[in-house]
Amino acid sequence: MPPGINMGKDGGVMHNREERILLGHGSGGRLSHDLIKNIMLPAFANSALAELHDGARLAIGGTQLAFTTDSYVVKPRFFPGGDIGKLAVCGTVNDLAMCGARPLYLSAGFILEEGLPVAELKHIVASMRETALAAGVDIVTGDTKVVEKGAVDGIYINTAGIGIMLPRVDITAKRVKPGQDIIVSGPLGDHAVAVMSERHGLTLPERVISDCAPLNKLIEAMLAEVPQIAMLRDPTRGGLATTLNEIAADAGVGMILEESLMPVRPEVLAVCEILGFDPLYLANEGKVIAIVEKEYSEKVLTIMKQHEFSAAARIIGTVTNQAAGQVALRTTVGGLRLLDMLSGEQLPRIC
Amino acid sequence: MPPGINMGKDGGVMHNREERILLGHGSGGRLSHDLIKNIMLPAFANSALAELHDGARLAIGGTQLAFTTDSYVVKPRFFPGGDIGKLAVCGTVNDLAMCGARPLYLSAGFILEEGLPVAELKHIVASMRETALAAGVDIVTGDTKVVEKGAVDGIYINTAGIGIMLPRVDITAKRVKPGQDIIVSGPLGDHAVAVMSERHGLTLPERVISDCAPLNKLIEAMLAEVPQIAMLRDPTRGGLATTLNEIAADAGVGMILEESLMPVRPEVLAVCEILGFDPLYLANEGKVIAIVEKEYSEKVLTIMKQHEFSAAARIIGTVTNQAAGQVALRTTVGGLRLLDMLSGEQLPRIC
Repeated sequence: MPPGINMGKDGGVMHNREERILLGHGSGGRLSHDLIKNIMLPAFANSALAELHDGARLAIGGTQLAFTTDSYVVKPRFFPGGDIGKLAVCGTVNDLAMCGARPLYLSAGFILEEGLPVAELKHIVASMRETALAAGVDIVTGDTKVVEKGAVDGIYINTAGIGIMLPRVDITAKRVKPGQDIIVSGPLGDHAVAVMSERHGLTLPERVISDCAPLNKLIEAMLAEVPQIAMLRDPTRGGLATTLNEIAADAGVGMILEESLMPVRPEVLAVCEILGFDPLYLANEGKVIAIVEKEYSEKVLTIMKQHEFSAAARIIGTVTNQAAGQVALRTTVGGLRLLDMLSGEQLPRIC
Repeated sequence: MPPGINMGKDGGVMHNREERILLGHGSGGRLSHDLIKNIMLPAFANSALAELHDGARLAIGGTQLAFTTDSYVVKPRFFPGGDIGKLAVCGTVNDLAMCGARPLYLSAGFILEEGLPVAELKHIVASMRETALAAGVDIVTGDTKVVEKGAVDGIYINTAGIGIMLPRVDITAKRVKPGQDIIVSGPLGDHAVAVMSERHGLTLPERVISDCAPLNKLIEAMLAEVPQIAMLRDPTRGGLATTLNEIAADAGVGMILEESLMPVRPEVLAVCEILGFDPLYLANEGKVIAIVEKEYSEKVLTIMKQHEFSAAARIIGTVTNQAAGQVALRTTVGGLRLLDMLSGEQLPRIC
């Protein structure tokens, strides 16, 4: 550590000299939220960042753009339904789509471990090409670093992306209002369970495949027909519960979800019950949450059901004017269970 | 490794089943060049990438943009003259500037090792803020991943950047022609020697400080006065010799450099002589190579000498119509020494 670091108290959870980064700081849950709020936002203060969306919305030379980035450290790097390359393209494409943008261009930054088989790199790069082609984006700039054996675990990939904002669209938590419907595009938890089962060599009665997919064409179809959609987010790290908590807090609204409507595959539920995971907190990599005025819900659902990645779309709850900032689950037995943000870490290196 | 990888021969250096990534693939030299040519370019074929510039030049909605990315894995993360945060901002700002763009917005992707002291992260983030402020760019979007202890060595940072192309400017190797002057902005090798001396705890008679600096304001001043500048590049990994080799190959020209004009600090030269390094292959993080028609050289030099980061700018050689693709050094004793690209790895994790 360099000399002269000023450790003064600055509120929040991080104020003592011994504070160290925990796995939970990367969970997408409460600790991630605190890290961003206490360290990143004060340092990089600007209006685009302050929106805390999946990407920044920018105006450059009269053109409205979205810009986003994600690093991918998934372990293992090959899993049922995809690999780190496919994930790296889908994740950034989806983040741009969630801003209401058409993804156009991606960058790719590779950090490789000395000794990585070149065949693996080729396989991963081929996945990236295939996924970029499916999403209709170009990978236009890149960088490769190699670190000595042991300094990184195999391969990490960062992608950043630029998209052009779609016309007549304004996707922001500020437009989430009581009375709106909360729609989810399909079953929850597939990605997390697929990665986890591969990582731990679980033999499941039915194989679970990651939902990893580029959603931009779906989202663009939805927004072309219903530009009134208020909010879109992909429930990745931290899962549906954490994502909705963030939106509820930003919008200053409450949310009530119906447990009986929550889409979870039986085989995912089975794994969750054995291992003690809650599917509402598991990462998805090909799902979207859409929040929309009730009058448009059916139209949105009709479009979604025609699309391969959202054939099982359904309404799972509503936005309320009670308990601002809180998300509650009406259980099948009729009680209300408060769904907080993910606290701590559930599954490290899930994406 | 997943099943079904097709390992067919595909030319170049990588065609056998046992091929593995070497440190040299990240050197910025010959192996990096081959990796890009044999794996990345065929996979991601598109015109922007094919230019092989420091960044991609893109037109979006009538606006001309530049887009670039780099990951930073420097070891140690604090060194004389900077740290990984300052480096991550300067590197991407400089890559955009070298495209002839005004850098505007940066993304920041952090990969943190569990256990990293929060105080270090704060220090690094503060460096990023300070450098972004100096360069006049905003960090508008980001991502943080945390990996378990041992899965990464401390902290890696990726930055991607967007800039708007400056008017009347066309910076490309294709415009490099015989007769033009080759200018360098100052002494070579400072960054590499500063990092290396910190890494190995060398006690030098005179401390060498990294030249790490944002060059965008310098470059914009140069281009405002002399939009005719043909080519700009920052000689980072692989150093001056490798960078000029790339340009010579792309432009199909030769180059002759004068050893007697080559700016290297005595203290850097001393370290190089002891350790067997050639300063022409050492990484710089705050230097620019400008190639320009002779008639504009003096004007460019006058502007550069007024700027703090290029007060020692000078002409070091010329572009020739002989030995296309080759760079030669006229030695002080009058001979010609061929300067090839860096082969293998000189100093891993220098940026």
